[in-house]
Amino acid sequence: MIDKEIERRAALISKVIDRYLPIIQPKGLYEATRHLVDSGGKRLRPSMLLLAAEAVGGDPKKLVSAALSIELIHNFTLIHDDIMDNADLRRGKKAVHIIWGTSGAILAGDTLYSRAFEILGITPVGSGLLLAAMKVLSKTSTSICEGQWMDIEFEARDDVSEEEYMMMIEKKTGVLYGASASMGALLSGASEDVVKGLDRFGRLTGMGFQIQDDVLDLTTDPRIFGKKRAGDLLEGKKTLVIIHAQSNQVKLNIFGKKDATQKEIEEALQLLQTAGSIDFARSRAEELVVRGKKALDVLTESPAKTLMLELADYMIRRRY
Amino acid sequence: MIDKEIERRAALISKVIDRYLPIIQPKGLYEATRHLVDSGGKRLRPSMLLLAAEAVGGDPKKLVSAALSIELIHNFTLIHDDIMDNADLRRGKKAVHIIWGTSGAILAGDTLYSRAFEILGITPVGSGLLLAAMKVLSKTSTSICEGQWMDIEFEARDDVSEEEYMMMIEKKTGVLYGASASMGALLSGASEDVVKGLDRFGRLTGMGFQIQDDVLDLTTDPRIFGKKRAGDLLEGKKTLVIIHAQSNQVKLNIFGKKDATQKEIEEALQLLQTAGSIDFARSRAEELVVRGKKALDVLTESPAKTLMLELADYMIRRRY
Repeated sequence: MIDKEIERRAALISKVIDRYLPIIQPKGLYEATRHLVDSGGKRLRPSMLLLAAEAVGGDPKKLVSAALSIELIHNFTLIHDDIMDNADLRRGKKAVHIIWGTSGAILAGDTLYSRAFEILGITPVGSGLLLAAMKVLSKTSTSICEGQWMDIEFEARDDVSEEEYMMMIEKKTGVLYGASASMGALLSGASEDVVKGLDRFGRLTGMGFQIQDDVLDLTTDPRIFGKKRAGDLLEGKKTLVIIHAQSNQVKLNIFGKKDATQKEIEEALQLLQTAGSIDFARSRAEELVVRGKKALDVLTESPAKTLMLELADYMIRRRY
Repeated sequence: MIDKEIERRAALISKVIDRYLPIIQPKGLYEATRHLVDSGGKRLRPSMLLLAAEAVGGDPKKLVSAALSIELIHNFTLIHDDIMDNADLRRGKKAVHIIWGTSGAILAGDTLYSRAFEILGITPVGSGLLLAAMKVLSKTSTSICEGQWMDIEFEARDDVSEEEYMMMIEKKTGVLYGASASMGALLSGASEDVVKGLDRFGRLTGMGFQIQDDVLDLTTDPRIFGKKRAGDLLEGKKTLVIIHAQSNQVKLNIFGKKDATQKEIEEALQLLQTAGSIDFARSRAEELVVRGKKALDVLTESPAKTLMLELADYMIRRRY
C-alpha cells in the first residue's frame, strides 16, 4: 500500500529532474551531479514533503520543485559523505568520487547544493513563504554539516554517549526529514503550530530511519542494500549498535579494521546479536517513530495523514 | 585614498564576524570555518557591495549581513579550491585542509556555504528583495562551481582558447563580484537597469582582477602574496599568460612540474616576460576594467560612484 503511494510520488520527482537539473555545459560536471540523483533511491524525503502538503490541504503539484530541492540537498550530502567515509559504493553503483575523483565529487556536491536553492526559488508561491522556506533549507544544511562533523569526530572517541549519538543523528539525518515535512506544510500556508508539529514528525521519524539504517548496514545483504556489508563497523563508526555493545563490554576485534575477513565480520555480527545490541537499536528506532507519529496530532484526519503515519512505520520496516 | 575607504568597509565586515559566525558546537567545525575568514584578505567583494548600496542612495549599514554572506561564499570556494589544487598556503597561513584534513575542509566549506544563505536571510529588507538576493546568490554559487570545473578541466587540455579562458574566469571570479555590486543595488531597491549595470561592472572588473591575480602569481614575492610563487604555473593551470605563451610557441619546461627548482622558475618567468605574455595579460585586465567602469554610466554622479571607479582601478593595480 504505502510502497505504491511512495513510488507514485517518487515518480513525480524523477519526472522533473531533467527539466530542473539538465545536463548543460560543462557537461562532465552535470553528469557527475546526476549520477546519484538519477539512480533513484526511494525519494522518501520529497515524498514526505508532498504528503505533508496534501495533509494540510495544499496543492502538492505546486511543490514538486521544492520537493526536488530537498532530494538534491540529500544527494549533495551523500556525495560529500562518501568522500569523507571512503565509501566506494552507493545504491549499488560506484560512488561519485570513485568515477570523477575527489575534486569532481566536491564540485558535484557543491553544485547540487546551490542548484537546490535555485530550484526551491522557482516554487510558485508568494515571496514571504518562499523566503521562509529558503531559511529552513539553509539552516537545515548547516545542521547536516554539524551532524556529519560530529559523526567523524565520534570515530576517534571511545566515550560517545547515547545522548550524543542522538544529537548527532538528529542533525545528520533528522533535520532534513523535519525540513521535508515542515516545508510541505509551510509552503502550503499552514499555521505555525502545524508546521512545528510536522517538523517534529519528520525529525523523530528521520532519527528512527537513521538508526534503522545503522542496523541494515549490519544485517542486510549488500546486493540488496547497495553498500558494503558492515561498512560502518569496519570504518569505526559509532552507531547506536556499537555504543550499546561497548557499554556492555562486547569485544569487537574488527571495529575500525577495514580489511576484516568475511568470517570475522560474521563472528562480530553474532556477538552483537547475542549481546542484544541490534535489538536495542531496533527498539529505540521504534520508540522514535511512535513519538514522531504522535506529533501528527496537529493534523485533522485525512487520507494523506493516514499515509504519513504509514510512511513513518515504513521508514523503520524497510529492508534496504 | 581608496585603500583607506576599502579598509574602513572591511572593518565593518570584520566587526560582525563573531556575531554572525560564532564559534559554537561542534567547536572544531566552526574553528575551521573561521580560519580563513578571520585571516582577513582585503574584503573587496563586501566592500563593493556596500559601495554599490551607497551609490544608489541606499543605507549600507543595513546590508552588512548581505556583504558578509558574499565574503563567506568567497571563503567557502577558497577552502574547497585549495583541496582541489593541492595548495598548502593561503593568505600566508596554512590552508584549511592542511590543518583539518580533507574531510574537515569539505565540511568547513559546506558550512560556510549554508551559513552564507542563513546570514543573507536576516538582512533587514522586504521579503521580495531578500528573495531576489537569495536567487542571485544561489545562481552565482552554481556559476562558480562551473568555472572551477572548467579551470580543472583546462589543466588536461592543450588547446584552451582565450575565449574559453574568459568564460571560465567570468564564472569562477567575475560573477561573484557581479553579485556583490548588483546585490548592493538590488537590496537598496534600485531599478533593474541599475542592478544590471552594476552586475556588469562587478563581473568585468572581477575578470580583470582574476587576470591580475594570475599575473601576481608569477611576479610577486610569495612573502607578500601569501601563496607559493608561480604556484599556478607548477600546477599546470591554463592562465591567460600561459595561453598567450603557448600560442606564441614559448617552451615552458616547468609547466605542470611541481618540483621545479627556484632557478628553473626564474628562467621560465624570463621567457614569459620576453614573449610579452605577462604584458599581454596585464593589458587584457586593463581593457576589462575600462569596460567595467563604463557600465557605471547607469549611476548618477556621487562620491560613492567615484570610489567605485577608483576601486575598479585598484583591483588591477594592487600588488598582492
